[in-house]
Amino acid sequence: MVKQMNRVGIIGATGYVAMELVRILAGHSGLKLSLLVSHSQAGSLFSDIYPAFSGVADLVLETLDPDQIAEQCDFAITALPHGVSSEIVPALLDRGLRVIDHSGDFRYRDVSAYEQAYKLKHPRPDLLAEAVYGLPEIYRNSIRSARLVANPGCYPTCSILAVMPLLKAGVLNLDSIIIDAVSGISGAGRKGDTSWSYCETAEGFKAYGVVGHRHTSEIEQEYGLIAGNPTPLTISFTPHLAPMKRGMLATVYADLLPGVETSSLSQYYETAYADEPFVRFLTDSTSPNTLNVTYSNFADVSLHIDSRTNRVKILCAIDNLGKGAAAQAVQSLNIMAGLPETSGLKNAGCLI
Amino acid sequence: MVKQMNRVGIIGATGYVAMELVRILAGHSGLKLSLLVSHSQAGSLFSDIYPAFSGVADLVLETLDPDQIAEQCDFAITALPHGVSSEIVPALLDRGLRVIDHSGDFRYRDVSAYEQAYKLKHPRPDLLAEAVYGLPEIYRNSIRSARLVANPGCYPTCSILAVMPLLKAGVLNLDSIIIDAVSGISGAGRKGDTSWSYCETAEGFKAYGVVGHRHTSEIEQEYGLIAGNPTPLTISFTPHLAPMKRGMLATVYADLLPGVETSSLSQYYETAYADEPFVRFLTDSTSPNTLNVTYSNFADVSLHIDSRTNRVKILCAIDNLGKGAAAQAVQSLNIMAGLPETSGLKNAGCLI
Amino acid sequence: MVKQMNRVGIIGATGYVAMELVRILAGHSGLKLSLLVSHSQAGSLFSDIYPAFSGVADLVLETLDPDQIAEQCDFAITALPHGVSSEIVPALLDRGLRVIDHSGDFRYRDVSAYEQAYKLKHPRPDLLAEAVYGLPEIYRNSIRSARLVANPGCYPTCSILAVMPLLKAGVLNLDSIIIDAVSGISGAGRKGDTSWSYCETAEGFKAYGVVGHRHTSEIEQEYGLIAGNPTPLTISFTPHLAPMKRGMLATVYADLLPGVETSSLSQYYETAYADEPFVRFLTDSTSPNTLNVTYSNFADVSLHIDSRTNRVKILCAIDNLGKGAAAQAVQSLNIMAGLPETSGLKNAGCLI
Amino acid sequence: MVKQMNRVGIIGATGYVAMELVRILAGHSGLKLSLLVSHSQAGSLFSDIYPAFSGVADLVLETLDPDQIAEQCDFAITALPHGVSSEIVPALLDRGLRVIDHSGDFRYRDVSAYEQAYKLKHPRPDLLAEAVYGLPEIYRNSIRSARLVANPGCYPTCSILAVMPLLKAGVLNLDSIIIDAVSGISGAGRKGDTSWSYCETAEGFKAYGVVGHRHTSEIEQEYGLIAGNPTPLTISFTPHLAPMKRGMLATVYADLLPGVETSSLSQYYETAYADEPFVRFLTDSTSPNTLNVTYSNFADVSLHIDSRTNRVKILCAIDNLGKGAAAQAVQSLNIMAGLPETSGLKNAGCLI
Repeated sequence: MVKQMNRVGIIGATGYVAMELVRILAGHSGLKLSLLVSHSQAGSLFSDIYPAFSGVADLVLETLDPDQIAEQCDFAITALPHGVSSEIVPALLDRGLRVIDHSGDFRYRDVSAYEQAYKLKHPRPDLLAEAVYGLPEIYRNSIRSARLVANPGCYPTCSILAVMPLLKAGVLNLDSIIIDAVSGISGAGRKGDTSWSYCETAEGFKAYGVVGHRHTSEIEQEYGLIAGNPTPLTISFTPHLAPMKRGMLATVYADLLPGVETSSLSQYYETAYADEPFVRFLTDSTSPNTLNVTYSNFADVSLHIDSRTNRVKILCAIDNLGKGAAAQAVQSLNIMAGLPETSGLKNAGCLI
Repeated sequence: MVKQMNRVGIIGATGYVAMELVRILAGHSGLKLSLLVSHSQAGSLFSDIYPAFSGVADLVLETLDPDQIAEQCDFAITALPHGVSSEIVPALLDRGLRVIDHSGDFRYRDVSAYEQAYKLKHPRPDLLAEAVYGLPEIYRNSIRSARLVANPGCYPTCSILAVMPLLKAGVLNLDSIIIDAVSGISGAGRKGDTSWSYCETAEGFKAYGVVGHRHTSEIEQEYGLIAGNPTPLTISFTPHLAPMKRGMLATVYADLLPGVETSSLSQYYETAYADEPFVRFLTDSTSPNTLNVTYSNFADVSLHIDSRTNRVKILCAIDNLGKGAAAQAVQSLNIMAGLPETSGLKNAGCLI
Repeated sequence: MVKQMNRVGIIGATGYVAMELVRILAGHSGLKLSLLVSHSQAGSLFSDIYPAFSGVADLVLETLDPDQIAEQCDFAITALPHGVSSEIVPALLDRGLRVIDHSGDFRYRDVSAYEQAYKLKHPRPDLLAEAVYGLPEIYRNSIRSARLVANPGCYPTCSILAVMPLLKAGVLNLDSIIIDAVSGISGAGRKGDTSWSYCETAEGFKAYGVVGHRHTSEIEQEYGLIAGNPTPLTISFTPHLAPMKRGMLATVYADLLPGVETSSLSQYYETAYADEPFVRFLTDSTSPNTLNVTYSNFADVSLHIDSRTNRVKILCAIDNLGKGAAAQAVQSLNIMAGLPETSGLKNAGCLI
Repeated sequence: MVKQMNRVGIIGATGYVAMELVRILAGHSGLKLSLLVSHSQAGSLFSDIYPAFSGVADLVLETLDPDQIAEQCDFAITALPHGVSSEIVPALLDRGLRVIDHSGDFRYRDVSAYEQAYKLKHPRPDLLAEAVYGLPEIYRNSIRSARLVANPGCYPTCSILAVMPLLKAGVLNLDSIIIDAVSGISGAGRKGDTSWSYCETAEGFKAYGVVGHRHTSEIEQEYGLIAGNPTPLTISFTPHLAPMKRGMLATVYADLLPGVETSSLSQYYETAYADEPFVRFLTDSTSPNTLNVTYSNFADVSLHIDSRTNRVKILCAIDNLGKGAAAQAVQSLNIMAGLPETSGLKNAGCLI
């Protein structure tokens, strides 16, 4: 019997990232959602957990069994906590599955950077060399044939897309980069705790993890690689929480190197993103609104030059669950499966 | 040259209903959005008005020209104010277009009921006899061949789906029906006015149009027809506004006729909606949450019997822009075009 | 030494009702917050739990010790779960304290109604005869000298204020009353659970406890008493949850008795509430907006006559934490302490 | 007849700042709200515009008549657009009134900085020398006897309180300061426009005025003065809009000068704010949440040292309508009137 292609399983199927993956895959004509695995909720219907999906995705949640996954899937998307992914992903790779992982476990080139950020010993550092960082705008070609894709963090995704053209152009003072970023509340995951309750979050704004957020080192690694620096850069990063479900905005500040011609800066963006289907560079002096990207895979980017300070400000908006997680994973999956890269992802953001 | 089929134009293309239609049609494989008409914004790109659609739907908004519409479209969806639709729709019908209209202009069987509700003289009362009320759960067969479909109001849609099985079964005291309904703020349309500003609506709840809302008479007409009553029923209807963009919930109260066997009531719903792709009857003593239907065409219905009062309470949740407007129009369009009824509408609601 | 008067202790000091009590008492010139008791958080500062109060109310939370409470307080306000209040309140009364209790434990005249609603055996049914239902608009005189005041539920407060003038006037069909009510999310208390998380409540609307909510019997008791009925009335009551922190709106439907002169109905309200400092009867055909009462002790009421159905619709908005809980308790406390009834409560609602 | 003291009039009485002033003054025991002036709404009751104030502040709005204002008021608070204040304030000063102005018209030392920021010719540059910048934490003594107080902008208030101790200490690289700030939507004023509608703002986040916001020059002036610099500093400032009514958070980044001892930095804050009744320096490694300051006059400040980058991050949260506007004006008014500085302002923020 011919093996059916492009069957996708989601491992860790009850969180918000998994929910968004199911939403996207349910409307995808080239990928088939074939298996949902949830250790804690096995036996329930996915639509018992998320009744919105009743009649749309009524799969039974299964226990975690790598053999069953290998039997029923060609691709596995793991939406598991860090430290758990690194235990389970190897078993899936061993069974021939191609895997996209959502945790931080396979995003690092340097195992010590991982172990410092996550306070964990990595059980399979050998896989770090093989894993491809799943940002198609940089690593498209490697993603195509990858066995293991580490889906980027949400903050790194928008931070990288904001700055990549200028880092490549070599016009920034590499010690000067400051990223002030804001996330919707779903970024915290499915949390039951008064800190995430409606009453104690709605109508409020605050920072969190002001110094030392894990995504800092992930951004620094990729910034260093893009800039051609021998080591990761050192940046300042501050995440904030806004009272909204979805959406993420990074406002990035950087000093221009002396003598840089500011009139050509926007050209670097136009060139870099001319053929990118999901990056929209805003050229008409507007700036991104997260409402233009929510529920989509778009990243909207704008560049602002402040000649008084010789600094640039670059803004990038994404949906933290979209381009920042599930939709980006599907973009990589499309590439891995040889499908059109925009399959299942062509929808606009939702202002209303 | 063979005429290309299933080209759809939207007339009145800058409001929220039109935006939602564009969103749905952009992802629809059997219908092609071929023309957007906006009198006030002609010459702009649709994506200038709604930047979320940049790269997804960049059509130029056109002036209103019935001949051009007839040339470029097979179907026209009019999203125009009442009183305007009744002027423009006839010109479209005359040119051979099949039309779905979103206003109240063609929803009434009795022109006097229309004229009383809308305080307008109807210019083409002859078309009322031809127009089909676009609720597929009742009028599917007539919709199939209709030239003119009057898309139902949002409140009528959820009010009718809530009660239809019991009205048909003849178990309700027809004088006792009370509908208490709640809408998201998009129901008011695209309004620039402090009354609809974030600051004066967020975190607040209120009723409006407490007595005499126009949708009352539309509901009464359809209730009367379903019940087989010689005239419209007389009901109480109170709309409220909740601080949310989308979503609508109707809580309907009705007295049971003496002697009605309550144990069989839920069976009427199961039978009526067994084959309906977009009505989900909740059987496990849960009740609808608008978050399970937003951004979708689903209507979630639950029935609650209060034996102490011999009353039923029926709840129905829809998305006022979805099943209450644009998605329902596409459902009818699918039927008219001979496509699978769920084409382009198979997505789940969005909890997050 | 002369005993210092009007010292107030709050027992159960970490929930939202307690927080609101602290907020009001911190600005009250005639009552002194002298003690905060919290079993679970004893030893912490109140402002550790609620940092908003740092510099305003930095009291240490104490363990529950009736003797200490009696030593440090003249009045105790208990904000405890039902079943707990009925155990603790007697010990406070025994020590000479005057008590306002927020639970359902002392709101019932008939212990069997309590036991049916709360599924608990009442340990001190004898106190039900003594307890005064703390709605000043009805029981002001009894509150003045009461030892034990049972602060009304939020839904009963707005349901009673909505209908009292018409019930007294004897113009309603007593079997026809339907209450459709909506609460802000703080009504559920300080809940850590995904059901109350921002992501799963914001932008959504739903009913809960559709049949059999406990407040039903409390409303029925008071309605019966107001109407001069020998027994509680039988009504329909449906609570809903709107995506907002505070605020409550009841929409009440009732059939008028045959022959009732509708022109005089509003006069019943004007008379009943003419001298009430916290009930605002809206006479200019407007209807209440919860935003006009949030953070205040006001109840806004409007009457709407639907001559087509011979029904009235009455709307009443309160703040569930204000007139629906803490502010109403302070109103009673003012009365008990012989202070001006509006002391500490004269502020407007907060639109913004 | 002895002139009655501390009568306050509000000129420009229908915007949100005026509403907040009325709210505070209605509960103030030492200041009497004696007059409300509104050109556009003269003749209406204030409570017609804001029904929340019915029964609390039912004053009739008056036309603008400087003689009447002088007759009925000792103090005038002007809440007028820039360009209008500078025309009207002189007439009030001439009649012996002491004035607090909310516009930008009297905040600048250097008229050319004003004229560049506001694109207006200043009609009375002579008054700039006399006007006192109304930030009590710096200018308390001058405010005491001032005839004219220029109430600071909201962004400048939180930006200055964030950084003042370090600027005074001389530990910062003055060219390196970056302010990333977020405001609630009320900061835009009472706007009727789809841009400020619920549907197009809720659940979204964006920047605005990315380069060149007017408050930049106001911050630069005060930063320069605090630092003892001969000229204003040059900083980067980016304002953002979060989906909430009230609240403002500034996240300020600055490089430490080489050799600065980071262990003493927090001491500068503790010393500077030890006796300030409205600035709370958070010492326990927490950071500010706007919900702890909304509806209050508090500013919550935290300091975070990032030794990797040798930068500090300082966060400051205020209520843009509170410490950022109306409450701060009342704080100055208390000082001017010789009242306790905290009169009418002692309330906590509102988490819920």
